[in-house]
Amino acid sequence: MKRILSLSSVAALLAAVLLSSCCGPAVREESVSCAVPPRAEGQTDVLGLRCPALDTVRVAFIGLGNRGKEAVKRFTHLEGVRVVALCDLVKEYVDRSQATLAKAGLPAAAGYYASDEDWKKVCERPDVDLVYICTDWSTHTPMAVYAMRQGKHVAVEVPAALTVEECWQLVDAAEQTRRHCMMLENCCYDFFEMTTLNMAQKGLFGEIVHVEGAYIHDLRNNNFSPDFYHDMWRLKYNAAHTGNPYPTHGLGPVCQILNIHRGDRMEYLVSLSSDQFGLSEEAVRRFGAGSPQAEEEYRLGDMNTTLIRTARGKTIMIQHDVTSPRPYSRLHTVSGTRGFAQKYPVQGIALPPDTHRFLPAEQLRDTLAKYEHPITREVGEQARRVGGHGGMDFIMDYRLVYCLRNGLPLDQDVYDAAEWSVLVPLTEESVRRGGQPVPVPDFTRGAWDKLKGLKLAE
Amino acid sequence: MKRILSLSSVAALLAAVLLSSCCGPAVREESVSCAVPPRAEGQTDVLGLRCPALDTVRVAFIGLGNRGKEAVKRFTHLEGVRVVALCDLVKEYVDRSQATLAKAGLPAAAGYYASDEDWKKVCERPDVDLVYICTDWSTHTPMAVYAMRQGKHVAVEVPAALTVEECWQLVDAAEQTRRHCMMLENCCYDFFEMTTLNMAQKGLFGEIVHVEGAYIHDLRNNNFSPDFYHDMWRLKYNAAHTGNPYPTHGLGPVCQILNIHRGDRMEYLVSLSSDQFGLSEEAVRRFGAGSPQAEEEYRLGDMNTTLIRTARGKTIMIQHDVTSPRPYSRLHTVSGTRGFAQKYPVQGIALPPDTHRFLPAEQLRDTLAKYEHPITREVGEQARRVGGHGGMDFIMDYRLVYCLRNGLPLDQDVYDAAEWSVLVPLTEESVRRGGQPVPVPDFTRGAWDKLKGLKLAE
Repeated sequence: MKRILSLSSVAALLAAVLLSSCCGPAVREESVSCAVPPRAEGQTDVLGLRCPALDTVRVAFIGLGNRGKEAVKRFTHLEGVRVVALCDLVKEYVDRSQATLAKAGLPAAAGYYASDEDWKKVCERPDVDLVYICTDWSTHTPMAVYAMRQGKHVAVEVPAALTVEECWQLVDAAEQTRRHCMMLENCCYDFFEMTTLNMAQKGLFGEIVHVEGAYIHDLRNNNFSPDFYHDMWRLKYNAAHTGNPYPTHGLGPVCQILNIHRGDRMEYLVSLSSDQFGLSEEAVRRFGAGSPQAEEEYRLGDMNTTLIRTARGKTIMIQHDVTSPRPYSRLHTVSGTRGFAQKYPVQGIALPPDTHRFLPAEQLRDTLAKYEHPITREVGEQARRVGGHGGMDFIMDYRLVYCLRNGLPLDQDVYDAAEWSVLVPLTEESVRRGGQPVPVPDFTRGAWDKLKGLKLAE
Repeated sequence: MKRILSLSSVAALLAAVLLSSCCGPAVREESVSCAVPPRAEGQTDVLGLRCPALDTVRVAFIGLGNRGKEAVKRFTHLEGVRVVALCDLVKEYVDRSQATLAKAGLPAAAGYYASDEDWKKVCERPDVDLVYICTDWSTHTPMAVYAMRQGKHVAVEVPAALTVEECWQLVDAAEQTRRHCMMLENCCYDFFEMTTLNMAQKGLFGEIVHVEGAYIHDLRNNNFSPDFYHDMWRLKYNAAHTGNPYPTHGLGPVCQILNIHRGDRMEYLVSLSSDQFGLSEEAVRRFGAGSPQAEEEYRLGDMNTTLIRTARGKTIMIQHDVTSPRPYSRLHTVSGTRGFAQKYPVQGIALPPDTHRFLPAEQLRDTLAKYEHPITREVGEQARRVGGHGGMDFIMDYRLVYCLRNGLPLDQDVYDAAEWSVLVPLTEESVRRGGQPVPVPDFTRGAWDKLKGLKLAE
């Protein structure tokens, strides 16, 4: 005897099975899309993209808050650049950066602050080569895409995108306009990170098996400040989302070491968050029980941990915690078949013959000196003088401008921006689904093995 | 119009959906059982179990290799014990431990080595109170269960069990026989771990949000040695299994801090492993390409990372790597809403007022002294003299004997043994299923909130 079921009851049955699966909590919200959208007719990848060399890089800054004002300062130390436009919602911020230019003996830039659509006029200016975006997270992709559609190169703060759709928008805009889109992942340019990248590329760690990165930074002061983040956008985002909203500082450097989309690719991830404890506790301490801040529901768990598998069988562990009272850490752990390195809480390297111990202080110093990356060797001293997170911000800007002026591929391409940023929605999806594995889209659409290893252009 | 489907096609459809789920690779092997088996009639839990005080603890050792021979040595330093039997497959090992007793001026014990069933005779001896099991992993549960069924208390090396079924066998045997079954998780007794437990219980870290543990120990020398592990059992196990086969050293101390089954419980885990790279590479180096060791298929990935969620919304991260050339680490990270501690690579504690920095050396020393656990304060000096992983092994034995002699609950009960060991099969399950979440059985069968916090008996 065959029982008979309608399609709708099959759907209900399927849903019930998926929801009551013995292995993990139920799906609570709509899934992100896993599908890779087809390329438009005639559209091709921008791997290794080269654009005509620019004698002078004419740059417009959008967003002149904490990050933007420092970027303008750094650009006053770079050769071959001209700051042609400054844009922010806050007039005082524009004035402040104009003063920075004046102090450096540079001509004033055009100022934009009249409306929240002014950034479009900036992107439309014919005398702009590069739009440098330091706004809040939610505007990164719309601005970057609009700028590329106006024929501009783009440098955009982290994360470059907040949804899978935004990641694809960045990739498609870059592929269709043939413009550079570099996410400003400054931690790729920190000294120890660059040294370990150099050591990895020279084979000193053997086959890299497992890497770790993190953004562990107690931001409670900033997040509860009424004006550190304009209109408290960061706290609001964290109140509305879970997962890892800020994954790229730890992820960027280790993805470079693993040659992600240059011979390997991230296949899937699982992500778990603790509940939220610390923000509410801190809100009670600062504002009192019963205060709006103490009553607010913050969805972001204090600690998020994400595990990623790559196509070549490597694993990546990434953490995010901006609430717990802990010393700052980005982990930066590199574990291979021949050697080992980690940056936090103290820099340590283990190499043959005795990998059971970290190199003693003097040998560590010699090793770091011996394998210093050619780029930091070249510009590191100036970078430390100029400053910006110990110099790495300046090295990043220096490289961006150097590559644009020489018509070279940028160190970070639009696929890096998409791959590193896509953890924002994918970790949230996995956390919401009780740690279910979530596939990472291949933003190169099949070309992740075309480039053989990361090469920073010379 | 309604489409019509038979039940068998529904089943096929369900299978197809589950196998081709957009979110993660397909299930490749039969699942472990998630179900909690009902208790037998009249069987009750052994939470806080007290047994009649023993004036002298008469102990029989089974397994006198690396761990067992050291345990016998340590027992010669304990008061109120008598070693009545020594059992191993290797006669020389029995002789070696007899010599240990003689050297300490103690009477010889009965020796057992005639057959691989001799251990049963040891368990059956009427003059034995405690069977102390230091054999290979695969025999832990059968021996422990048999000993309890003979009315003996059991102390068993880690992991106590290798399968979910074995975990339930331990729990049921303990509940039915009302005997103690303590897993010998020595790392719970290390000095820094005990201090942080004490600090956590005094509230210095606030609400504990996230903890980490690991067993990162380059064992390539031991694993490739023909006789370090009898008949190379460890390498063979690692060749046949993936996941985390040895999770308890990192997990035990942090589960104590989280009050697992004493107010909280592990709900589910996700686990990812890297591929295996290091063992094959090492085998080629040691034995040559084409050697049997180089040709062997080792299923264990070099690095396994596991994330666990608890009922109270806390997260645990556990790692295992016995192949990569790295300095030893058990992590031991404790992150709360008020303070932070981690043990590896260097001991560090951060407490108010400045949690952005680790305590400087002198304050760290003072803090560790101030919050030293009463148990290590009492017996720590003697423990350091006797030795055994820096003293923790002796403290463990001391506590085991102290509690048995005073009729007190042991520090670790059979639920700890089951909960910590069950990661062995559950991590393997999750890894095989591409990181799918796997529920952790509640071995207390609903009584995980009955005890209010871990209390080490005084």
